[in-house]
Amino acid sequence: MNEHIVKSFDEDLKKLDNIIAEMGGMAEVQLADAIEALIKRDTDLADQVITSDKKIDILEHEMDGQATATLALRQPLADDLRVTITALRTASLIERIGDYAKNIAKRSVVLAQSPPLGPTKSIGRMAALVQGMIKDVLDAYMTRDVEKAAAVRARDADADLLHTSLFREILTYMMEDPRTITSCTHLLFVAKNLERIGDHATNVAENVHYLVTGDLPADEREKSDASSFTLVETE
Amino acid sequence: MNEHIVKSFDEDLKKLDNIIAEMGGMAEVQLADAIEALIKRDTDLADQVITSDKKIDILEHEMDGQATATLALRQPLADDLRVTITALRTASLIERIGDYAKNIAKRSVVLAQSPPLGPTKSIGRMAALVQGMIKDVLDAYMTRDVEKAAAVRARDADADLLHTSLFREILTYMMEDPRTITSCTHLLFVAKNLERIGDHATNVAENVHYLVTGDLPADEREKSDASSFTLVETE
Repeated sequence: MNEHIVKSFDEDLKKLDNIIAEMGGMAEVQLADAIEALIKRDTDLADQVITSDKKIDILEHEMDGQATATLALRQPLADDLRVTITALRTASLIERIGDYAKNIAKRSVVLAQSPPLGPTKSIGRMAALVQGMIKDVLDAYMTRDVEKAAAVRARDADADLLHTSLFREILTYMMEDPRTITSCTHLLFVAKNLERIGDHATNVAENVHYLVTGDLPADEREKSDASSFTLVETE
Repeated sequence: MNEHIVKSFDEDLKKLDNIIAEMGGMAEVQLADAIEALIKRDTDLADQVITSDKKIDILEHEMDGQATATLALRQPLADDLRVTITALRTASLIERIGDYAKNIAKRSVVLAQSPPLGPTKSIGRMAALVQGMIKDVLDAYMTRDVEKAAAVRARDADADLLHTSLFREILTYMMEDPRTITSCTHLLFVAKNLERIGDHATNVAENVHYLVTGDLPADEREKSDASSFTLVETE
């Protein structure tokens, strides 16, 4: 094959990686800002997160165009086909992480209108865990590091456990002071959004495994989020 | 091109459609059963929904394999490439609709352990709307009917409005009787799941538009779900 064609094909695939890197970086910032807006009750920052989400959406469209063009013009096989499909999927996962960050920002605006809530501290702790997962899984993607991806996947169980305990904590808080019902409800959804972001980081980790090995991880993923089954009794 | 090759290529693409039809049908049944389990407090039916979700997951893996094989072996162009990519995306959306149905089933098990809640009736109404959207969008997909897809997309605004009003109704119910806090919280998440299912039906509708025309719908979709911004004051 003509060397020029080969070179520009590699460049095409590299472009896909670059879009993932850019989207991933943006999603990290969006989540960090949304959590800061929530904790510091900074509605200007929250508004900024809500507006900036469009940039991630635009990049996802760019990925769609780029990946489809690569499939049509290059007709990639085996490894290259896998890179293209995985980039498409990963972009969609990152876009959804961005959506969750935006939703956290929206809810932080409402939360800033009522008195601060005790469980917000635990939200910060859960966010830190999930932010670490995103950072590591993006690194794993860029360096094709299956071990690092597996470690992220393993950490999802911690995120689920933290979410279940946070769910209980917030419910208990509401019961002790029913005036906080509305604001605590928004906090419950923030916690749920973080749990979903952890799931999506885990899905990206599974994509990294597929990207490198051609298979999905063999072991069934442990699901430890019991919040859907959680019953907190009133006294 | 050899007629035999052309014929079996058409068969490949038809297989993708068949998997979508099968997954879609299953997701419809799963959602209907989850809602029935919730309303009739039927935990056996709920358990069945929880177990059956695996079948949809298996079909999604089948789609992944089939679509990747089609891309690798047939190297489809233009329309055929679009059919393949859209099938892959749509399968992922239907799989997520199945996940939401499963989550509703899980929560219905908890809800059956405490007294019936008034707002459950409104959940039934919202579910009927969303079920209609899924049915119609699957028809639109199978018949490549852009008009029908556009109609589903337009109905998402109704689903969003219904969700916001349901959110208020459930919050008010909790405030009037704080003993219902835990169970009402699960109902809030059921409502949210239905709203997300409506979003996913809308995303499938956008895929139908892309499948037929090669473009995404030109107009920005109207977002009417204001629940993330909703504040219900305590008396």
